[in-house]
Order: sequence, then C-alpha cells, then structure tokens
Amino acid sequence: MTGPLRLRRVPIDTNREVVAYLPRRSAVCRPEDLQALAKLELSGGGKHILATLNIIDRSDILAPDEIGVSRQAYELFGLPEGTAIEIEQAKPPESLDAVHAKIYGAELSETAIAEIIRDVAAMRYSRMEIAAFLVASATFLSAAEVLNLTLAMSATGSRLQWPGDVVVDKHCIGGVPGNRTSMIVVPIVAAHGLTIPKTSSRAITSPAGTADAMEVLARVDLGIEEMRAVVAAEGGCLVWGGHVNLSPADDILISVERPLNLDAPGLLVASILSKKLSAGVTRLVLDLPIGPSAKIRDHASALRLRQLFDYVAGQLGMSLEIVLTDGSQPVGRGIGPALEARDAMQVLSCNPQAPADLRERALAIAASVLEFDPLLRGGAGFARATELLNSGMALRKMERIVEAQGRRQDPGIGSMKRDVLAERDGTISAIDCYRLARLARAAGAPADKGAGIDLFKKIGDRVERGEPLYRIYACLESSFRIVYEAASADTGYRLSDAQVVS
Amino acid sequence: MTGPLRLRRVPIDTNREVVAYLPRRSAVCRPEDLQALAKLELSGGGKHILATLNIIDRSDILAPDEIGVSRQAYELFGLPEGTAIEIEQAKPPESLDAVHAKIYGAELSETAIAEIIRDVAAMRYSRMEIAAFLVASATFLSAAEVLNLTLAMSATGSRLQWPGDVVVDKHCIGGVPGNRTSMIVVPIVAAHGLTIPKTSSRAITSPAGTADAMEVLARVDLGIEEMRAVVAAEGGCLVWGGHVNLSPADDILISVERPLNLDAPGLLVASILSKKLSAGVTRLVLDLPIGPSAKIRDHASALRLRQLFDYVAGQLGMSLEIVLTDGSQPVGRGIGPALEARDAMQVLSCNPQAPADLRERALAIAASVLEFDPLLRGGAGFARATELLNSGMALRKMERIVEAQGRRQDPGIGSMKRDVLAERDGTISAIDCYRLARLARAAGAPADKGAGIDLFKKIGDRVERGEPLYRIYACLESSFRIVYEAASADTGYRLSDAQVVS
Repeated sequence: MTGPLRLRRVPIDTNREVVAYLPRRSAVCRPEDLQALAKLELSGGGKHILATLNIIDRSDILAPDEIGVSRQAYELFGLPEGTAIEIEQAKPPESLDAVHAKIYGAELSETAIAEIIRDVAAMRYSRMEIAAFLVASATFLSAAEVLNLTLAMSATGSRLQWPGDVVVDKHCIGGVPGNRTSMIVVPIVAAHGLTIPKTSSRAITSPAGTADAMEVLARVDLGIEEMRAVVAAEGGCLVWGGHVNLSPADDILISVERPLNLDAPGLLVASILSKKLSAGVTRLVLDLPIGPSAKIRDHASALRLRQLFDYVAGQLGMSLEIVLTDGSQPVGRGIGPALEARDAMQVLSCNPQAPADLRERALAIAASVLEFDPLLRGGAGFARATELLNSGMALRKMERIVEAQGRRQDPGIGSMKRDVLAERDGTISAIDCYRLARLARAAGAPADKGAGIDLFKKIGDRVERGEPLYRIYACLESSFRIVYEAASADTGYRLSDAQVVS
Repeated sequence: MTGPLRLRRVPIDTNREVVAYLPRRSAVCRPEDLQALAKLELSGGGKHILATLNIIDRSDILAPDEIGVSRQAYELFGLPEGTAIEIEQAKPPESLDAVHAKIYGAELSETAIAEIIRDVAAMRYSRMEIAAFLVASATFLSAAEVLNLTLAMSATGSRLQWPGDVVVDKHCIGGVPGNRTSMIVVPIVAAHGLTIPKTSSRAITSPAGTADAMEVLARVDLGIEEMRAVVAAEGGCLVWGGHVNLSPADDILISVERPLNLDAPGLLVASILSKKLSAGVTRLVLDLPIGPSAKIRDHASALRLRQLFDYVAGQLGMSLEIVLTDGSQPVGRGIGPALEARDAMQVLSCNPQAPADLRERALAIAASVLEFDPLLRGGAGFARATELLNSGMALRKMERIVEAQGRRQDPGIGSMKRDVLAERDGTISAIDCYRLARLARAAGAPADKGAGIDLFKKIGDRVERGEPLYRIYACLESSFRIVYEAASADTGYRLSDAQVVS
C-alpha cells in the first residue's frame, strides 16, 4: 500500500478503459515499477477501483502528491477531487479463476457466471480479460451456461416493468442493410393497443441502426422516466437503449466481441434475451435473416440457433416466435439514416412509391407480434396488421410517438448526389450486403444523417448498360469523391446474362 | 479519410498501448464518433500506425488542428511533430482472420502464424486481440504450430551470432524463489572456456529476477554491442534481455499472458526457445522445478512438457538437456536481489556459510552444461564443475565478468530487520513458495535491492517455539510494518509434530 495521494480528475475521455495517471516524479513511488504490474487498485473513502496506469511526463497536469483519473474512472469512483487515495498492486478479480477454468474447458456454475458478469459490469475486468472470457466462451457454452449468462447480464442493470402481462417486442439480429421494419411494426402494434417498449441500438460498424434512423424524425436519447411516459401515453416507443441502462454488462461485452468479430451463438442469445428480459418484455418476435452475406448463412445454422433461443426463452418464461427471413439483399431502397426513415414513412403513408419488400416484411413481422394477442391467435394477425397500416391508423400512431418523444427538424437527404451505372446489359444476380454497407458508411452514414445509398435495382431486375443501379448521397465533398471512386471500382452488384425468373 | 491534422507528442507514457489523442473540439471530425470504432489508423509521411483513441477535454494540451500521440506511439511512428496526419477507421490486421479460425479450432499454417506474430511485433494488435490469440492457443497448439510460433517469434528481433558451434546456455522456467543458479553456472562454464551469452529477465511479479540480483554487483542494461564485447573477452555474461531486443514479440505476448495467468505448454516452449534461438544458443540445459507451489505440479506434466521441448528443439537443431529439480521450497537462504546475490557469491567463494542446496543445484546444472563439451561428455561434467568452483577459478571469472559489465556499488542489505518466530515446537513440513515471494515483494523487492527475506529454516528442520524462522529486511518504515504484520498472520511455513527424516 502506497500513499496517500490527492485525487485529481484528468480531463481525458478513455472510453471503456479505466485509467489512472501518476506524475513521473511522484512523491510516493516509482511509477515505472507500478506500470509493469497489470493493474492498480485505488482506495479512498471506503471505495475501490481497478485501473491501468499511465505516467504523465509534463509537470503542469499533476503535482507530485496527486494521482489523476480519467473521466470514466472519476465517474466510476464517485469521490471528490482532493480525496486521500492509497494505491497498491491490484489483486485480480477472484472470478478470473472461473475464466481460467473456462479456458481449459470447464462448464461454469450459475454462481461463477454471476460473479464474472458482476465484475465485468463493475469494470473490474480489463478488455484483455474480457476477451479471454469471450474467446473461451465462443468455443463452447452449454445451454445452462447461456441461460445463466442471460440472467446474470440482465441482473446488472435496470429492470423495466409495465402494466399487464402481454408486453411485446420484435428484434432483428441485423446484418441486412435497410431492414428498418421496427419503425413500421411498432406503430402498427401500438395502434392495435399492445404495449411495445422498443429500445434500439445505434450503428457501430453499419451505416444505420434503428436509433439513428428514428432520430431523423424524433429525439431518441430518452431516459427511463421519459421512456415510461411515452409508452404510458402511446403504448409504444422507439428509443435508443444507451440511456436506459438495460443489461450494461452486455454493452461492455459487445464492445469487445465486435472488434474481435466473435459471433458465437451462445453469446448472441444471452445478449439479446438479457436486454429483452431487462426491458420487461414477455413476448418476442425474432427476425433471423438468412443469406450469403448475412450473419446466418444457411438454414441449418438458423435451426441450431433457434433451438438455443427456444430453450433459454422457455426457461425465462418468455414467449418467443422466430421468423426466418430472406437476407440475400438489402431491404427497401435507402441505406443510411434519412433514406431509411424515408422508406419507413413511405410504407406507413401507403405511398405508391413505397418499397414493397419492406412493406411485406414489416407486415409479416407485425402479424406475428399481433398474434400474441389472444384474440388474434391462429392467423388473424396479418389481416389486422394490414388493416392498421392501410387505414392510416399506424401512420397516425407514428406521428403521435414522434410528438411524444420530441419531433426533430428533418435533416434532409445529402445535397451531393451521383448515380452509379451498370457497365453492361444483364440481370442482377446478387447484391453484396457488406459491400453496400461499407459504401454507405464511406459516404458519411450514420454521422451524416442524409448520406447513404438509394437503390434502384434489386435481385432479378433487368438492366441495360448505362442504366443507374443506385444513387450515392453525401454531405461532404471529400467523402463524396472517395465513395464514387470506390463504387465505380466495385459496385457490389453482380450481373448475369440469363434472365432470372423472380 | 479525415485530416490533415498536425502531429503532436503528448507527454504520457501508455506502456504497451498505442494511444492517439484528439481534442474534444477537433477541427476535422467528431472525436466521439471515432472513439466508438475499435481502432484508428494514423497515416503520414508514408508511415502508418494503429492506435486507440482518447479524447482530451482540456484546451491547452492540443489545438483543434492537432492530433496527439503517446510517448510509445510517437516512438513507433518515428515522425517529427508538425507532420501532416490523416486519420481513418483502421482495418483490422488481416491476420486476425487466422486468429478467428484458431478460436474455432483450426490448426494454423506457418504463414498464418508468421503473419500474426509480425503484426503483434509491429503493435498492430490491441491487448484484447492478443488475448484472443493466446486464449485460443492455450487450449490447443499442435507441435507444428509450436515450432512455427517459435520460428516466427525469433524472426521478429535481433539474431546474435557467436564464433564456434558450441554456444551453451541454461534456463529455468522459474517459480521457485532464490533459485539463482545462473550467477554460479555462468562463471563455472565460462571459466571452462565454453561460450555462454546469458540474458535474463527482471522480476515482474516475483521478488527478483536474475537480472535484478546481478545488478546488485554489476551493470546489466547492456546493449548488443556491449554484450558482444563482454562475451568476446570473458566467454560469458549475465545481462538483462531488455536492451538486446531478442524476440520482442515474445515480450509483448508475455505482457498479456502474465495477467491472464495463462500457462499453456505450447506458449511456454515457444517463448523460451525463440529467445534462445535469437541469442544464437545451440546447446541448452533447461531446469524444470517440480513442486506443489511451483509452475509444474507433478512428474506427468513435466514429462509431457519435456516431449514438446524435445520436439521443437530437435527441429531447430538445438541440443537440449532437461533437468527435473525439486521445486518444493525456496533455494538458498535469501529472497530478494541483494540477499540472492549474497548467496551466489558465498557459493562462488566457497564460504562455509554458503547454502548447500544452492551449491549442489548449481553444480548439477553446470555439470550438464559442461557435458556439451565433447571432452567431458558421459559423466565428467560434475567433477570438472566442482573443480572449477573449489579452485576459485569460477569466482575469479565472476569478478572479471562483473568488471567487464561495469562494477556497481553494493547497495547493502536493508537497514530495517526483524525476525519472524515459530509459534510452537515442531518440524517444518512445507514452505509456501508463493507466500514467501509475496512477502519479499511487500518488503520492497525488487525495487529496493536490499529488501527481502532471509530464511533460517528449511523443510525437515526442527524448530522450537520462539525460534526464528526467517528475517525480514526492508528499506522503508511503511513496508516494513506491513510485511511484519502479514508474516505474523501467515508465515508461509507449515509445522508438523512428527520429525521428518530428511
């Protein structure tokens, strides 16, 4: 134990790392010696945090008798500046023993998993330690482990409760650009009178998440109380999950899974169901798109995943309906927040220009959700969904949800635009979802809401040489040029000579 | 691609993380959006580095048109301040595909392993990505993968060459406090006339590495040229490996393995043999201590490990002799740099006080090394080693090596001392190596060279109540008190009533 040092907030945002700073000439220790250790434990005012140590070589940021903490560490610590802090080599969290056992093939107990997740949520794990847990789990998780992981993750955050037993939701595992059915399903279902408290993510590596597209129309960064008020008034909402603190351990795990490109079924199931459990959802429709460039490549994988979802949801007492959908090409026309919001609003407005595939897909999912209503069970969902959409009731509900969340000024579509043309005659045989997502992202989406790609052709369509395949929209000159060059080099479209019967 | 920004060195030492800093109010981007991405690629002057992004909220550290890099990132980049830098989302290193395949059980090709290690050495991997590779490898590495890992790691750094074909070395896998045989074996072997260019590590979590103990007597932070000169003059050296740049990828991997407590045989073999290959060693004696609190717990594990060492060394054309030793208790008396150096010098001086177990163990290992000399092969090594030690030739060689490396002022033993006493009569039945290492470390070792523990009793010794078990030495009042209290609470010694026949 070394100290005491005075606590100082260092104005550096270290994102998901908890960082402590010592001046090179510390009054109480040789910082170089401490840095060789994996982690430090800082203690003060009865509180303790674990932190990685950085050393500051400039003398005007920290005095010799001070210890600095980054913005995140300061919030986590919750102590005022000037508090007397003792430092020592951190003992690794005890739950790392269980991670170690998992690496060597053990099945973990409910208690062991709960302790791991509690330590992860308390930021006692480094990202390296989280990676070790996830990689060990990616190879094998038993169904019981997945269930316990789901329960443990759900227990780390807020738990929403709603009046009544039937609280519905829909979720798509993602990977298909333009698949913005939530913005249509939520108003249909809420217009029917069911409770659908939808939280969505923002895009991290994709060109738009549902939260990004909804934000074109309305505020989405609602806190829990605001979200409760919107759902109480309208029966549904479309908010960003980031301020609602549901299953925060899941957000931490995802921040490591994503860069490592880990796509283990057990982790996916626990991630989705823990969020829904925390959101108070009792009935869930899950959209699993299947396609060569989607997250699920074939039916066999989809069926295995479905089994695991069914088992865990069953143990949680959650009714689950899984819909396998076509993930072979983007849905709708727009890719990018404003373009996707436009598509969804065209469907809700029954605009003749509305993309038929998005409308059909949204109706099918809304039908499944509506059939959680005992009065509609057994096949009446589709007719009811169509009625709510065609009558304009879903559109009016959407307008009310937008007003309740707080309407935003429409940012419009990007002012720079250019069409990408077919190089020869042919029939569209394939569209690479991943490639188009990359292009839309390079155009500026999701940060530039109006940037993205607007598709004119889908699989099975006949094109002639020089005919536009899609239009690129951008808000900045520099990205505009880069995307156009990239799209010209590889459009993401494959043409065949034979005409495909669609 | 966003930019350009002017490069600025930020005076923060981020150890093994490559960190870039942007001001919150950057002139060219919204730093929050970039931070959500896993990593940034910085490009300028034809060079590229990958970095994690931190955001600085204070305006006097970076101007809006600047991008900062931490000390390590600045050195890695090698560009002057003011260079125009472009930033963009980093593409993950392509070799991560192979890591991904490894997670799901693939055996990796020579090329795949070489690419992974090259990217690790170039610091293109985050610690999280390194953890993923190591955890996936800890579960299973084929013998061919271990060989290719050894070759790839060795290829990342310097490669030493020595005149003659017989270049010998000894290495201990560690875990037993006080096991400082290198400081006795190197002078014996060099006195005989063989070439033994020994590089050692400093302690990270133990109370002393060979480099720490040797540094009590002589400089150890020699560069490659200085090391060459010492070996040319004296036939041997005892230097710290840190300035010699042998297998730097290994150092990076170890910095992740250690906090994760990964002890996979394949990683251990590749780590040790890559360092020896790079050091130009052609004949190696390997000391594997076995004991209940050592790294290897039983003979079966030792034999499996031996097989893997034999296979890889054989493929490398390196002669390997493995010695299984007793790892059930500390070796010698002292634990801590100065106390261990004292023990080694007592053995070299044939001081009657010299610990017999350290002398015997060093002679046994020196004998094995000497038998790499064709003239001594077949059992003549032990007599020759004893002769070199007893005649004072080994001591004189040690004095010459110390002079050649640069003699240092002896720091002496810690000025504060206190004995820890037996609480009852009995016979020492066990000594917990890990506990004693922790106590010596808490006393201040290795940073305080004179701090540590001096053992008076070993397993099988009879003690009476109130008789001293060991003495604690410390240099600082605060650590002195803490260690004494900790030692009184749990001495690390176990007593039994029955007298053990030793």
